[in-house]
Amino acid sequence: MKMSNMFTKTRKQVPADETAKNAQLLIKAGYVHKEMAGVYSYLPLGLKVLNKIADIVRDEMNAIGGQEIQMTALQVKERYEATNRWSDDVVDNWFKTKLANGTEVGLGFSHEENLTPIMMEYIKSYKDLPAAPYQIQTKFRNELRSKSGIMRGREFLMKDMYTYSLNQEDHGLYYEKIKHAYVKIFKRFGLGEKTFVTFASGGSFAKYSHEFQTLSEAGEDTLYLHRGKKLAVNKEVYNDKVLSELELDKSELEEVKGIEVGNIFTLGTKFTTPFGMKIDNGQGEAVTPIMGCYGIGISRVMGTIAEILSDEKGLVWPENVAPYKIIICRLGDDTDVVKQADELYKTLTAVGVEVLYDDRYARPGEKFADADLLGIPHRVVISKKTVESDKLEYKNRTKNESENISKQELQKRLETTN
Amino acid sequence: MKMSNMFTKTRKQVPADETAKNAQLLIKAGYVHKEMAGVYSYLPLGLKVLNKIADIVRDEMNAIGGQEIQMTALQVKERYEATNRWSDDVVDNWFKTKLANGTEVGLGFSHEENLTPIMMEYIKSYKDLPAAPYQIQTKFRNELRSKSGIMRGREFLMKDMYTYSLNQEDHGLYYEKIKHAYVKIFKRFGLGEKTFVTFASGGSFAKYSHEFQTLSEAGEDTLYLHRGKKLAVNKEVYNDKVLSELELDKSELEEVKGIEVGNIFTLGTKFTTPFGMKIDNGQGEAVTPIMGCYGIGISRVMGTIAEILSDEKGLVWPENVAPYKIIICRLGDDTDVVKQADELYKTLTAVGVEVLYDDRYARPGEKFADADLLGIPHRVVISKKTVESDKLEYKNRTKNESENISKQELQKRLETTN
Repeated sequence: MKMSNMFTKTRKQVPADETAKNAQLLIKAGYVHKEMAGVYSYLPLGLKVLNKIADIVRDEMNAIGGQEIQMTALQVKERYEATNRWSDDVVDNWFKTKLANGTEVGLGFSHEENLTPIMMEYIKSYKDLPAAPYQIQTKFRNELRSKSGIMRGREFLMKDMYTYSLNQEDHGLYYEKIKHAYVKIFKRFGLGEKTFVTFASGGSFAKYSHEFQTLSEAGEDTLYLHRGKKLAVNKEVYNDKVLSELELDKSELEEVKGIEVGNIFTLGTKFTTPFGMKIDNGQGEAVTPIMGCYGIGISRVMGTIAEILSDEKGLVWPENVAPYKIIICRLGDDTDVVKQADELYKTLTAVGVEVLYDDRYARPGEKFADADLLGIPHRVVISKKTVESDKLEYKNRTKNESENISKQELQKRLETTN
Repeated sequence: MKMSNMFTKTRKQVPADETAKNAQLLIKAGYVHKEMAGVYSYLPLGLKVLNKIADIVRDEMNAIGGQEIQMTALQVKERYEATNRWSDDVVDNWFKTKLANGTEVGLGFSHEENLTPIMMEYIKSYKDLPAAPYQIQTKFRNELRSKSGIMRGREFLMKDMYTYSLNQEDHGLYYEKIKHAYVKIFKRFGLGEKTFVTFASGGSFAKYSHEFQTLSEAGEDTLYLHRGKKLAVNKEVYNDKVLSELELDKSELEEVKGIEVGNIFTLGTKFTTPFGMKIDNGQGEAVTPIMGCYGIGISRVMGTIAEILSDEKGLVWPENVAPYKIIICRLGDDTDVVKQADELYKTLTAVGVEVLYDDRYARPGEKFADADLLGIPHRVVISKKTVESDKLEYKNRTKNESENISKQELQKRLETTN
C-alpha cells in the first residue's frame, strides 16, 4: 500500500476523554476511531491487525477440531428466561431493544443460550460428540464505565468456542487440548512470555476456571504469580487452601496486575439441563452433555499488544500481527531514489511481503516519526545516499540503531523473522 | 472435511413459520439456523458460502481503490439528529437501545452519519480525494414483516462502500467504475445472466440511482426489462418521460419481478453539508465534497442464489461460492474402497481443492440425496464397482447423468471450472 493512497494519516490530537494508552496510540496512528466510550471503529490499518489476530485464533481452533459458525446479535428473550439470565438483576450488562411488533430482544453478550438449541437439532448420539463450534463475532456488553480503550468495549470482537462432551472425562480431555492451543495462540501473538495461565474461580461445575492473563499495570485483575512455574492465582481465589492444593509457596509469589486476554471454563450442565438436551450414550441411556466455554477477546488482545509492547515513540507490532511487515521510507524525489524505492516495493510485493510504501512528499523526520508511531516491524530508508552506496538503510522497530545492508541481507531478515 | 466430523446434518423438517424457499432449503441442508423471523445463524457450511461471497466483493472493491474498514453497530444519536434521520417518523426501521447511563443509541442501519465524521479527521484537501472506504458489516433493520428468509433480514451482512469526491465530475467517474465492478461481481457470483442494471429513483441529488436486480418471482420489486439492452426500469420511475429519456420503447419491455441485490446511489452533499465537511479544492476555496453510496447485500446474495439456482433436489451452488468444490461419496466400507476414497481425499486436499468427504456409514440413496441437497458442484462416487474398473463415477450437480472417468479427467474437470 502506498501511503499517498491511504486515507488515514497520523494525528497529533486524541479526544479529550480518551485516557487509555492503547486507544491514544491507536487513534494517533490512525488505526481506530472512537465513536463513544468503549465503542471504536476500525480503520484500514486497525482492521488488518484485528484480522491477523482473528486468523491466528481461527487457525488454532480449526487445528483442534473447532468448526466456525456465526451466530446473531439479536437474542430471543425466552431462552434467557429458561436459564434465568434475562433479568437485569442477574446479568447487569444487557443491551435490550424491541422488534417493531413490541417483542423484547437482547443483544448477545455471550452465546450459550443461542447455541444449545442449535446443537440440539444436530447432536443426538454419543457418536456426534465431542463437538466444538466457535465463532469470531461482535459482542455487546453495556458496561457502566468503559475507560480502558479497546481493552474493555461495549461493542467488541470475541472468539467464543463451546464444547459439548458426553461425560466429564471427555470434557476434561478437550479442555486440556484447548488450554494447550491457547498457549500456542498467545505465543503466536507475541504475548507468550508475558501471558500466564491463572487459576480463577470455577463456578458450580469445576473447582477452577483458567484465565490467560497478560501482565500489565493497566490490567484490572490482581494476580499472585509464580514465574518459575509459569502460573498464577487470581486474587478472587487466593487463600491458603488453594495455595496448598496448587502446591504453591506464598513466599515465592509476586503480586502483579494482569489483563484477562482469554479464559476457559467448565460449564457442566448449566446450559444443557434447562433446554433438556439429551444424548444417547450408546448404552441405552439418555444423558445430559457437559459444556465448556473458551473465550479470547480479539479486540482486547489488539489493545493489550498496543498497551504493553509500545514505547515512547509509538506502537511496536509483533511480526505476526503487524498490518504490514515492512515500511519503505523514500526520502526526496530524485529520479534514482524514486526508481529504486518503486522497484523494491514491487519486488517485495510480488513475493508476497506486505509492504507499506511511504511515497509521500514529507520531511525525513516526519517519515521516521510516522514509521515509529505506526509500529511496522521492519523499516528501510531509500535516499540519495543509499542509492549511491548501493546499500539499504535498515532498522528494526525494536532497535535504536540502523545499519546499511544489501538487498540480499534484507531478504534474509524478512525471512528469518517470518 | 469429513462428514463424519461435521456437526451439522441434513434435516427433514423446517420451522413451521418458515415460508421462504431459500431459507427452507438452507435450513434443510444445515447451512443456517433460524433464530426468529429475519434473524439467522450461519452454520459451518453457510458461513463458508457467506465468506466466499464477501471475499469476491472484497477483491473487486480493493481492485478499484476501496479501503476496508469496520464501523460499529452502536450509533450516536446526535449525528442522526444532524441529518434528521433519528426520528422513527423519518426512519421507520430503527432498533434503538440505551447505554447503562441512560444515553439513547441506535443500531446502525446504514453508516453515512458514522463515516462522515471519521473522514473529516483525515480528508482535508483535494489531494486526499477521491476516497472510497467500505465495510462488510452487520446491519440492523427493524422490519415489520420479514418473510423472505435470508433475503430480507432484521440482522444481515452488507457491503457498504462510500465515496467522497471533490466535484460532480470526479464523482461520476468513480460511480461508473463501481458500476463496472458490480457487473463483474455478479458475474463471479454466477448471477451475471440473471442480474440487470435497473434505473430507479435518484433522490435529490441525481436523476437516477442504479439497482442491480436479479430476476426472480420471489423478488419484491417490479421491473420493466429490455433483455436486448440488458437494462431495466424500476416501476417506481416507470413513465413515458423516463422511457423517452432512456430511449426505451414500451413495446420491447417485459414486466418482471426482481430481487435488489445491489444498489449504487449519488448522495450529493446530503451527508457532508450537515457535518460541515469542507475540502480545500487547491484553488483557495473550501468546498463540500460529493458522496456516493454503494451497497451489496452479502447475505441477500446468498439467499438469492439459494432461491433461484436450486432445483427440486436442493441447492445448486455456482463454483465460486460453493462451500466445497467436490463431494466424495464413499459407498460401503470395503478395504479397497476406503483406501481409494481416503487417498483421493488426501490428494485433492493436498493440491488445495476443497473437498467434502462423505465417509459416513449410510445407504447410497441417502448419500446421493444429501449430496444433491447440499449442492456441491462436483460429485465423485467411489464404490466396489469403481475400484474394480479403476474409474471414478463422476456427476456434475447441474447434470442428471453420471459418467465414468479417470483421475486425470477429474483433475481436468476441476481445473476448467475453477
